[in-house]
Amino acid sequence: MWDMNTFIDTLSMSPLLQGGISQPWLIAAANADEAPLILSGVLLSLVVIYLASKLGGELSQLLNLPPVLGELVGGVAIGASALHLLVFAEGGTVAADSALMPILQFIGGNLSAESITSIFESQSEIIEILSELGVIILLFEIGLESDLRELTEVGYQAVLVAVVGVVAPFAAGTAGLVLLFHMPTIPSIFAGAALTATSIGITSKVLSELGFLKSKEGQIIVGAAIIDDVLGIIVLAVVASLAKTGEVDIVNVLYLIGSASAFLVGSILLGRFFNQAFVTIADQLKTRGKLVIPALSFAFIMAFLANAIHLEAILGAFAAGLVLDETDKRKELDKQVVPIADILVPIFFVTVGAKADLSVLNPAVPENREGLVIAAFLIVVAMIGKLMTGWTVVGQPGINRFAIGVGMIPRGEVGLVFAGIGSASGVLDKPLEAAIITMVILTTFVAPPLLRVAFKGGAIAIESPAN
Amino acid sequence: MWDMNTFIDTLSMSPLLQGGISQPWLIAAANADEAPLILSGVLLSLVVIYLASKLGGELSQLLNLPPVLGELVGGVAIGASALHLLVFAEGGTVAADSALMPILQFIGGNLSAESITSIFESQSEIIEILSELGVIILLFEIGLESDLRELTEVGYQAVLVAVVGVVAPFAAGTAGLVLLFHMPTIPSIFAGAALTATSIGITSKVLSELGFLKSKEGQIIVGAAIIDDVLGIIVLAVVASLAKTGEVDIVNVLYLIGSASAFLVGSILLGRFFNQAFVTIADQLKTRGKLVIPALSFAFIMAFLANAIHLEAILGAFAAGLVLDETDKRKELDKQVVPIADILVPIFFVTVGAKADLSVLNPAVPENREGLVIAAFLIVVAMIGKLMTGWTVVGQPGINRFAIGVGMIPRGEVGLVFAGIGSASGVLDKPLEAAIITMVILTTFVAPPLLRVAFKGGAIAIESPAN
Repeated sequence: MWDMNTFIDTLSMSPLLQGGISQPWLIAAANADEAPLILSGVLLSLVVIYLASKLGGELSQLLNLPPVLGELVGGVAIGASALHLLVFAEGGTVAADSALMPILQFIGGNLSAESITSIFESQSEIIEILSELGVIILLFEIGLESDLRELTEVGYQAVLVAVVGVVAPFAAGTAGLVLLFHMPTIPSIFAGAALTATSIGITSKVLSELGFLKSKEGQIIVGAAIIDDVLGIIVLAVVASLAKTGEVDIVNVLYLIGSASAFLVGSILLGRFFNQAFVTIADQLKTRGKLVIPALSFAFIMAFLANAIHLEAILGAFAAGLVLDETDKRKELDKQVVPIADILVPIFFVTVGAKADLSVLNPAVPENREGLVIAAFLIVVAMIGKLMTGWTVVGQPGINRFAIGVGMIPRGEVGLVFAGIGSASGVLDKPLEAAIITMVILTTFVAPPLLRVAFKGGAIAIESPAN
Repeated sequence: MWDMNTFIDTLSMSPLLQGGISQPWLIAAANADEAPLILSGVLLSLVVIYLASKLGGELSQLLNLPPVLGELVGGVAIGASALHLLVFAEGGTVAADSALMPILQFIGGNLSAESITSIFESQSEIIEILSELGVIILLFEIGLESDLRELTEVGYQAVLVAVVGVVAPFAAGTAGLVLLFHMPTIPSIFAGAALTATSIGITSKVLSELGFLKSKEGQIIVGAAIIDDVLGIIVLAVVASLAKTGEVDIVNVLYLIGSASAFLVGSILLGRFFNQAFVTIADQLKTRGKLVIPALSFAFIMAFLANAIHLEAILGAFAAGLVLDETDKRKELDKQVVPIADILVPIFFVTVGAKADLSVLNPAVPENREGLVIAAFLIVVAMIGKLMTGWTVVGQPGINRFAIGVGMIPRGEVGLVFAGIGSASGVLDKPLEAAIITMVILTTFVAPPLLRVAFKGGAIAIESPAN
């Protein structure tokens, strides 16, 4: 009764697929014929992302590795390095590079090159925003799982870890490039700066998966990663203005330091007040989503504010989670955020993997070789510079210093931002840019399994707080 | 210590906000300075949407009306009719019409008019896709709550209700416009066709809120709404080709009828097989999201397929929910889909409200008056044409016929698609277009409270199935 070939024949013969007058509902407005195709592209991308994340995550689990590593690798498999099912409109990538576009073109009939480009760009932009919403929800969840009191307790240790973890790789990286590789000062400083900021997303996800987020080590790592994210933004402002004008824009740097401190301290102080308001509101509401909607609204407002004062949106989401963790709604909220995180967070990790172009690692390409040698140096500095931070922790007998150091290793998205800006502003040449990208990829992929090994050495448990 | 005025002064004096060289990380690529602003715009829009949906929903609840009505009204309040906090790049709306853009402009510093337009269009597009994902999740949830066996049982009654509910208002509307208003035939047919398709989203949401989704009446309404959505798409294809060429494109119509039937029957048949596969897969998976990710992937694939063969994506999502309802994972899945629906579904209803421009209802504007008279006629036909469908149900003693009729009244998005296409293709003049929009708005807003009243007359309960 149901014959696939006949169906496909009918489909391709149908005037519906020939464009023009037989697609009457597709002529409503200038770009109305693109709207259903953009939706199709987004749905297809999400399915591909979910497939990659589950295949990768489950395989990782089978190999006794953290699932997030598998999600990253799954992203690599469908991304710019391999299948091209998930590529983004950036760095010269066009619609023709996407393996999904022919499918949309088949569905849409005779699409102009212009339409395809516009559909590709829209879909790419939407998946990117969904991925950013994913990391916002992730940090909100991490904030909910973190304990403000415990974070304050480990506060000065986290600051030490963060500062050493920024200064050491920055200094060693810059000096090494100048002295060993005889590079000019400005590009060296830029590459050194790219070694500074830990990717809090990857580290905190692995900690959570291993069940060590609420250990003393876990809280120091998360606190330090938050602080060095802020430090990284300040370093970026410094080196970028240095690269542009040859001098440091003091006002800008002071502004960033001031706004970042004011934001974090202010949100926690205001949070104590907001806590009460939140509980009162949630108790009053009667309709569906009475807990999750006010909570997410708060997270999104905080993310917006952080973004608005040129910090990162994820800092705001983390602060929001930290604040709401202090309420008695925490448990119920935790439970409701889980499925939301389950569907949004994988989009982030798969996207990170998909954007990493591993072709820069191919030593068979001669022009990659110089970059690979520099990359090897940067990776060593990046790892040692963060590993040593564990030994800055004092007054915590029996703490797993190695685990803290390993937790600070993955660089992730901030490092890629450095590479992108450096390349666009002409400060970084091709080999150095490739070396930074390689460093980011390697530290990102090596950290999850290493962290699992490191925590085999144990951790200091934190008792559950009274409330 | 913390002074708001000083902070704002610092903010506006800061070189960060002046654009150009002091915004070093915003120069990475051509549109890299837009990316954080698009994210800001999306976050802000979501917060506004959540605020409107909760305020409206809770107020509705207090007044003993269905919450979804309040979400629609909340959307109207923040949308094109009033506050302009949520407007979309369509029908001549530009960035300057959005009340959110000045905020983004303040954050972004000196943005070019081109940048603002591009940010506005991106944000508008992303919220629209999120709203479509919202209605996809809604119909998936409704599918999960519906019972395939029960739907099959009421199948022929649903078909009767759907067919009468399409033919009656179509015939009466077209005849009335020609005979009473002396309108030309083609526009009359077009307006008559706009009276056909029930908005399944609104009706099913209200039924679910009232707890009558699993009554016999509820299942007949949902089944009929699904069928008349398909009929509506076919009618649209017919009248649009009629309007364009003066004749009906038979191949196109046959293709639509064939593909729609094949899709619904095929997905249910294949679904019986997929059920087993789904349970096996979900049982094998070990990592987070092991249930919700395969389920959503299935829903998105089905939505994509429906969209690809030029049906509506929501039909695919409904079929997916119906299929997964048959598995023993249903209860757990139901629970996990709730928070996801809670955050996505309100985006859809608020967007529907925000897009409805109530200024066409203002009788003080002389050019609205002709439209209002026609609108009054269309509304009467739209209501009576659907109300009578309840009396087509046979062999169900004691069934609440009035409730079935009322359940078919709201027209929603499909009616607006008719108005948009009719206007763009020049078939509809301004008064007739305004009349159709008014009819859609009124039937949409009148149905939820009316449905509550109608179900006061009781309903036939369905016992829970054995599995």
